[in-house]
This record gives sequence, structure tokens and C-alpha cells, in this order.
Amino acid sequence: MPELRQNYFTKEWVIIATERAKRPEDLVMHRPAKVVLPFVESCPFCAGNENKTPPEVMRVPTNGGGPWQVRVVANKFAALSPDVQPTRSIHRSRRSMGGFGVHDVIIDTPDHAQTIATMSDAHIANLLRVYKSRYDALSLDPRIAHVTIFKNHGGDAGASLEHPHSQLIATPVISHQVRERFQQALNHYDEYGECMFCQFLEEEIQEPERVVLLTEHFVALEQYASPSPFSTPIYPRRHMASFGDISATEIADLARVLRTVLAKLYQGLGNPDFNFTIRSAPAEYVGVKHFHWYISIIPRLTRVAGFELGSGMFINTVLPEAAAEFLRKVKVEMAVGAG
Amino acid sequence: MPELRQNYFTKEWVIIATERAKRPEDLVMHRPAKVVLPFVESCPFCAGNENKTPPEVMRVPTNGGGPWQVRVVANKFAALSPDVQPTRSIHRSRRSMGGFGVHDVIIDTPDHAQTIATMSDAHIANLLRVYKSRYDALSLDPRIAHVTIFKNHGGDAGASLEHPHSQLIATPVISHQVRERFQQALNHYDEYGECMFCQFLEEEIQEPERVVLLTEHFVALEQYASPSPFSTPIYPRRHMASFGDISATEIADLARVLRTVLAKLYQGLGNPDFNFTIRSAPAEYVGVKHFHWYISIIPRLTRVAGFELGSGMFINTVLPEAAAEFLRKVKVEMAVGAG
Repeated sequence: MPELRQNYFTKEWVIIATERAKRPEDLVMHRPAKVVLPFVESCPFCAGNENKTPPEVMRVPTNGGGPWQVRVVANKFAALSPDVQPTRSIHRSRRSMGGFGVHDVIIDTPDHAQTIATMSDAHIANLLRVYKSRYDALSLDPRIAHVTIFKNHGGDAGASLEHPHSQLIATPVISHQVRERFQQALNHYDEYGECMFCQFLEEEIQEPERVVLLTEHFVALEQYASPSPFSTPIYPRRHMASFGDISATEIADLARVLRTVLAKLYQGLGNPDFNFTIRSAPAEYVGVKHFHWYISIIPRLTRVAGFELGSGMFINTVLPEAAAEFLRKVKVEMAVGAG
Repeated sequence: MPELRQNYFTKEWVIIATERAKRPEDLVMHRPAKVVLPFVESCPFCAGNENKTPPEVMRVPTNGGGPWQVRVVANKFAALSPDVQPTRSIHRSRRSMGGFGVHDVIIDTPDHAQTIATMSDAHIANLLRVYKSRYDALSLDPRIAHVTIFKNHGGDAGASLEHPHSQLIATPVISHQVRERFQQALNHYDEYGECMFCQFLEEEIQEPERVVLLTEHFVALEQYASPSPFSTPIYPRRHMASFGDISATEIADLARVLRTVLAKLYQGLGNPDFNFTIRSAPAEYVGVKHFHWYISIIPRLTRVAGFELGSGMFINTVLPEAAAEFLRKVKVEMAVGAG
């Protein structure tokens, strides 16, 4: 029988459509194997082609030989510009603001053939430290209201370049969607005196049928009202509103958790296209007791269609409990290549 | 220079990314021409294959010869079921409800090779009357809170069958997104004493640079803060909260406007995949002064990626004013085939 479930945080309803249910196995990608080389002559992000990118913002050098580990450059096709004033304008129903902002490309690795699922934990920790470094630096700019860090992997996830890379967009406004989620979390805090995420994590760890991976500092799980199959958020277990508050110990643990979850998706579902994004408190809310940052990982296995666009509700054809069980069973090696 | 624009109704910000700007022409589909036959043996929606569908809910017969004009059947893979009780359950953070609901398939025409852009206005008017008939009937059911009518055209828009069809899903809940849009509209009404849609339409018709088509009863336009290229809502000019309030005269006019806008997209952009959905007041809000129904048409020319998923903000690479000018210039014949 089909079921409606309501997202605890956003209050949005999701249809768990068991009548059109798919077993988790039904969503495995069956793509022809493709040989990807570690160096592609025409790729602007490959080692040796550094002159093909816009100016470098920062890099993580190698300890010994090799070119570099991670590079950050300005996005050649930036959505926003640091050279525009964020001036507001209101004319009747038309509200606009100068397109001020920062748009970084973070080149995850010099190796074209890698993906986070196949990198070493040490390398991923370096990548996360770069995320944090740019996040911290931009959060200090009073013109910047919100920093979004994200990754598009594969064409269905909106990636236009194959070389593994992440992006950061810093905006002079906070989106209405983020404001609204904050308001829900604040309402909960005002009513119950605790962070709704902390309370939720405690419950989910006690009854772990939706938990995919639990470590000392993080938990990865399928949400009870997950809007799409295998969407797998990773939450820090300690209360923190902002990604910038993550400690060095937590970064090392997160590197392992992120790699393990992405490797489970990679191996279990056949390298699906996916997005991930860090949902963190906007700069002006650093330190609040009612919000809790997390990483949202969204495999792009299904398409948003007219019902979702019209109603705002999603239809999920895989039971979240079945997805969690499937991912728990995918065996991932605990130590992998040198990346 | 890039610009941020705020949607007047949802308060959501959109990045109009002129640095990565595309001319409207850049988004034209270049697909190999495909021969589609009017009858496909294996298609359950083709005339002659009526026994391959679930039981018929209603049909529009032909005046003279031919099988039928429009048929409504239950969806074989229904997301919700009329046989489940919509009973609520709350356990700690988990909120659910029995998956009660109705999921219709509306077969637009017996002819596999048609699409709304190529149908006659008289046929489209029949289709709209079927929409209204099912909308009215289901809105009377006290267990149903909201009715969403929509169309998925093409694989990128989530269509799994090629034969032209629409769908209707009636849910026992109102989504949080719809509630939130209602709240914004109510706030506006309480502050200014008028429907924000009516006020907006008056402004846009006075300064028509974003208007695509204006008739006695409807206006089709590109929104100032349009989230994606060529998204083209059609609004009734008369204040009506609910699609169910549409008059017979307005249906005839809407048939022409819907066909003309879809034909402009079909001819101008090379038959892009698209969704449309009717955004109407939930049954309990019929007659309110603060909401205004409309049809949202969304060509699926770009992909939602990590930034949109993480921030809630969209990046639009086509200036809405340029999209409107492009669509105004696409010449569409005013009387077409008998469909």
C-alpha cells in the first residue's frame, strides 16, 4: 500500500509509491565500461594544463614529487562576479540586486581518472580542508550572506566537465528556501528547547533501520521521508550550525565517511551521476543552537516531472529502509589507492 | 554584468547569469527528425487498444466517426490508491499518512503522432473540459485536499510513454510549498488589499517587454525572475483562485493560448521536452481573494545541479526579456489541423 511521509525538517510530504515500487537493485546503472585516462590533453583541470584555467586562488602542494594535490581557481563561466556592487533595486513588482558574488572551481585532484569513491582518505581530508579554508575566508566578507559548496558528478547531475571538481558559490543573499528551513528549525527550538537535528539523530541511531554508516563523529542515513532513492545525508553527531566549526579530528573522520558512502553508491549502483552539497548556516547565523549542518548526497537516478514541479511533493519509488539495507550490504574496502 | 532577481510571489532569488549568457537561439534542440505514426500496435493509449488500459473513468466521444476524442483511465502504476484510508500517524520524528489518493491518466487524443502544439483549438478545448470535469469532481471529495493536473512531454520531462497524455494526482494533504505560496499571497493581500497576481498582471501588461501573448482573457509571459529559460506561465486576466471557476468562453480562449504558446516553443526551440502544470487553489481555499490560478509551462532545456539543490536558488542563462522577444517572433499558424 502506498504511504505519505512528511519530512520532519521541511514539513514537505513525500509519496512512497510502493505500487510502482522498485527494488534497490532495479536502479543499478548498466552503462558500458569506459576507460578514463589520468591525463587528457584538452582538459583544463589536468596537471600540466594549469595555464588553461583562470588565475589560481589557492593550492595544496604535494609533499614530495608530483604537481599539486588540490587547486582552487576562479570559474571561467562564473554565475556571479566579485566586481559588481550588490545594490538593491525595487521597481513595482521587480526586485533585483547587482550580481555580486564569488564562484570558485575546486579541482579535486590532478588525476582525471579519479573520483572521491576511489581516492585515499588522506587526499579527501585535504579536499575538505580546502572547502573549509574557502568557506571560512568568504564567510568573513560582510557582503557575503551565504556560501554553498557543491559537486556535480556526471551529465545528469549537471556536470559539463569530466575531470573531478567541486564548486563554491558565495551569494549576497540568503535564499528563501534556506530562510524557511531555518524558521522551521527555530520554531522547533522555541517549542522544545533542543535542536531538532540532534533529537532526530538520537532517535535514528537508537532505531537504526535507516542508518547506513555510523562512526564516532558522523552518521550517514536514509531519511524516513526521503524525496528520492538513495539520497543519503551525512550529519555530524556533535551540534554545530556551521561547517566552519568542524574540527581537525572530525575532518579526518568525515573524509572516511564521505569516501565510504560514495564508494557504496559507486559500487552498489554502478557509478551513478550524483550531486552533493554542504548545507550550513549562513554567516550571520554562526553559533545558533537551532540549526545543524550536514552534507546532502543526491544520486540522480530519477527525473523530476510535472507532479513534483506542480505540487512541490516528490514521489519516491524505493522504500528508504530498503535503500539503507542495500547500502549497508555493499562492501567497501577500508583503505584504497594513494589518490 | 550578472544580476540577481527575486521572484515576487515566492520571494526566491534567481541568478540571471549574463556572463555565461546564452542567446535564445543557443537552446534550440537539434534532434534528428523522427517519424511518429498515428497508430502504434504496442501502445496502450492508441485507439483500438482500449482493452490494454485499466478501467475507463470517462471519455469524450466523437461527433461522427472515429473512436473517441479524449479518454480518462486509472493509472496502471498509480502513486496513490483510492482504497487506502488517509489515517495519520505520528511516532517521534516520523509522520506518515495512508497513501490515499487518485491518480488518473488523461489520454489527450487517440492519435499517437499528435501533440498539443499540432492539435485543433476545438480538440484542446475538449481536453481542458475533461481537466475541469475531473478537477471539479475530485474537489468535492472531502478526503481530497489538493488536485494537481500536469503533463510530462518527452523523456527529459519524466514521460515514460510517448503517446500524448496528461495526468491528475489528487492528494489528501496540501504540500508545504503550496501552503507557503499561499501565505506569501495572503501577507500581500493583508498589506495592500489586493491580489498580488492581479496587480502584477496589470503592471506586466502596461510594460509588455516580457509578454509573449495577450488575449481577451489570458496573458502568457516570461517572469522577471524566471528560474529557467523559456518558463512561460499563462494567467487568466480575471481574478479566480481556482481553475474550477473557469467559464466556457475562457476555456475556448485558453485552448487557443495554450496551443499557441506550445506551438511557439515547438517551432522556435525544436520540440523541446516540457512539463506543464495547473497551479490552482486547494479545494478548501476556493473563492479566496488572495490567490490566482495559472498554468506553468516549463521547457526542460537545462539541468538542475548541485547549486540549485543546495541553495534553493536557480541560475538562468537566458534573459527573460530576450526569451519573450524570441517567442513573440515565432510565427504560429492561427488555425491548424483537425487533431
